[in-house]
Amino acid sequence: MRLLDEQAIEDIAVGAAVLGTGGGGDPFIGKLMALQAVAEHGPVRLIGIDEVPDDALVVPTAMMGAPTVLVEKIPSGKEILSSFDSLQSYLGRPVFATMPIEAGGVNSMIPIALAATLGLPMVDADGMGRAFPELQMVTFHLHGIAASPMMISDEKGNSVLFNTIDNVWTERLARAATVQMGGSAMDAIYPMTGEQLKRGSIPGIVTFTERIGQVLRLAKNAGADPVAAVLEVTEGVELFRGKVADIVRRTDGGFVRGLAEFAGMDDFAGQRLRLEFQNENLIARTDDAVLATTPDLIVVLDAETGRPITTEGMRYGARGVIVGIRCHEQWRTPMGIETVGPRYFGYDLDYVPLEDLVAGRDSAARSQANAGKEQ
Amino acid sequence: MRLLDEQAIEDIAVGAAVLGTGGGGDPFIGKLMALQAVAEHGPVRLIGIDEVPDDALVVPTAMMGAPTVLVEKIPSGKEILSSFDSLQSYLGRPVFATMPIEAGGVNSMIPIALAATLGLPMVDADGMGRAFPELQMVTFHLHGIAASPMMISDEKGNSVLFNTIDNVWTERLARAATVQMGGSAMDAIYPMTGEQLKRGSIPGIVTFTERIGQVLRLAKNAGADPVAAVLEVTEGVELFRGKVADIVRRTDGGFVRGLAEFAGMDDFAGQRLRLEFQNENLIARTDDAVLATTPDLIVVLDAETGRPITTEGMRYGARGVIVGIRCHEQWRTPMGIETVGPRYFGYDLDYVPLEDLVAGRDSAARSQANAGKEQ
Repeated sequence: MRLLDEQAIEDIAVGAAVLGTGGGGDPFIGKLMALQAVAEHGPVRLIGIDEVPDDALVVPTAMMGAPTVLVEKIPSGKEILSSFDSLQSYLGRPVFATMPIEAGGVNSMIPIALAATLGLPMVDADGMGRAFPELQMVTFHLHGIAASPMMISDEKGNSVLFNTIDNVWTERLARAATVQMGGSAMDAIYPMTGEQLKRGSIPGIVTFTERIGQVLRLAKNAGADPVAAVLEVTEGVELFRGKVADIVRRTDGGFVRGLAEFAGMDDFAGQRLRLEFQNENLIARTDDAVLATTPDLIVVLDAETGRPITTEGMRYGARGVIVGIRCHEQWRTPMGIETVGPRYFGYDLDYVPLEDLVAGRDSAARSQANAGKEQ
Repeated sequence: MRLLDEQAIEDIAVGAAVLGTGGGGDPFIGKLMALQAVAEHGPVRLIGIDEVPDDALVVPTAMMGAPTVLVEKIPSGKEILSSFDSLQSYLGRPVFATMPIEAGGVNSMIPIALAATLGLPMVDADGMGRAFPELQMVTFHLHGIAASPMMISDEKGNSVLFNTIDNVWTERLARAATVQMGGSAMDAIYPMTGEQLKRGSIPGIVTFTERIGQVLRLAKNAGADPVAAVLEVTEGVELFRGKVADIVRRTDGGFVRGLAEFAGMDDFAGQRLRLEFQNENLIARTDDAVLATTPDLIVVLDAETGRPITTEGMRYGARGVIVGIRCHEQWRTPMGIETVGPRYFGYDLDYVPLEDLVAGRDSAARSQANAGKEQ
């Protein structure tokens, strides 16, 4: 157990937005919610999965919907309390701890705000190790853990409880309710035992996101290259560097979907990169090569500050470094690929691990260089 | 208290389909559900509102969605049990009785099937005295009774519980879930006390629908005019008589919407009637006159058999008598008109009571006849 103070929250918000791969909400809004709760109620106890008894109940909390909406419909903080309390009372026994369901500027912060307010511990784990747009896209799902009973609440005071036959039905019904609620809602979901948590979660992710935020901050303070610092701590690869030349975004069905085109700069001058997203960045490709696909992480960092740029925060002319980061091994299983691979999102692409795509391009570049020498 | 036997169920199904004004579902499917339950579990006790203690809990049960869908997605009977049981366990105390929420071929029968299966009494009352397409369109709503907590269930095993700030939000969220569930679902809704029931319901409606079904059956057996028999018992008015010349139906948003055109026959030869509906018949008009509007009842009876024709059962060439019946007085209040009047449904028409429209046409016809004599 350790306490999360204000600095930790600042770092987690930024680091989680990096792993949020464009989605998971704006880190500024998320941070304010968590900081306010901690200022009022004191710091949050972060506990490891081993500190959760096997028979204890853990309930992840999150925001559901399009991050573009959240920017204009800022949560009051009461919605998530309402969801959590109602689900707890429906389950009929006390909840031991909350936890994030995914990394992301908002979704890393909501459980902190809730934990502070209720004096609950937060578990250092999530269900993605990144962010994804749909409810069944969690490692819990790969381990047969049910998303329902799930509760969602809006800022008006409406709440809905779902009991479904599978997690895809939870997503379908909760998404429809979220759309009616105005495009975003707060949810308490995947109630699970400590035993299920240990089996089905990605442990240590809060600490990892905090470390990313930390190195970014320290690099900036030291005048070092913040992008290089992020690449080092995440073992990431620079895929592209360019300016946003075009951006198309559409908020519908409870998601924000779209694509951004980057005009290459520096080593990438003359090339173009196309980035496709649904809340999160899903595919990065140039005219002749796929550089990275879901479930590997595709992150856009501000070329100067190293800070993550979310899909809703991306502006024409912004200079970005597109970074690829290996996803958690759980996503690389056949069921993982089926759940979150390119084909699930409608792309006619097989998943190829990031490091193989990189190795393929490196060897192609070497052949080309050698061919050049032979001429 | 009296027992509803098979004959009563047959009569109620037909009579309720008359008051269902085109909606409320097919009486054949509804009847089979109720008859099967009664055959298995014995007859249902029908009780008057005075037999319900003021502090007892009553929960109406119904089908929600487009009747066109129900014809192809026949309920198993388990959905409504699931909705009812889940709501009862959520409410945390035993439910004393169920009741219909509206008249209609299916929605008059679902509470009978449930009452038979669970050995519960059914109250001789509903919340419409007819059928309407949306959840807040009940006299309970006019009396400030909340639709939620409301539970809906589908045939697959999904269920959703709504807790909303008002009844329009219940409608909105439950409709979205119903659409996701495939267009129809079973619901337990408007949990209320006996005191609220006595204040907010339309009493005696089950007995009244039974009487309509009875006179139709007896007229047919006696070789009498069944349409005339229905007009007599309902104090209805024949508005038009014609053949279906055109029918447009579209199932979307959990409703079936459309219009039917009738080419006049007999006294109405040469005239055309246009009937507009959203699950239920809403407006009947000729080229130069509005004959009847919601909330008054507009019923299409088969010209030969006198049996009601539902909006989804209406076929090209069918010969129908269009009948107007005065709605319950509760619908004629300002809040009633606001809730279910023509303007709510998007028509640029003020509500004029059926009998005034009829009197207006009669006096116009007399002037015309007199004008004819003077020539």
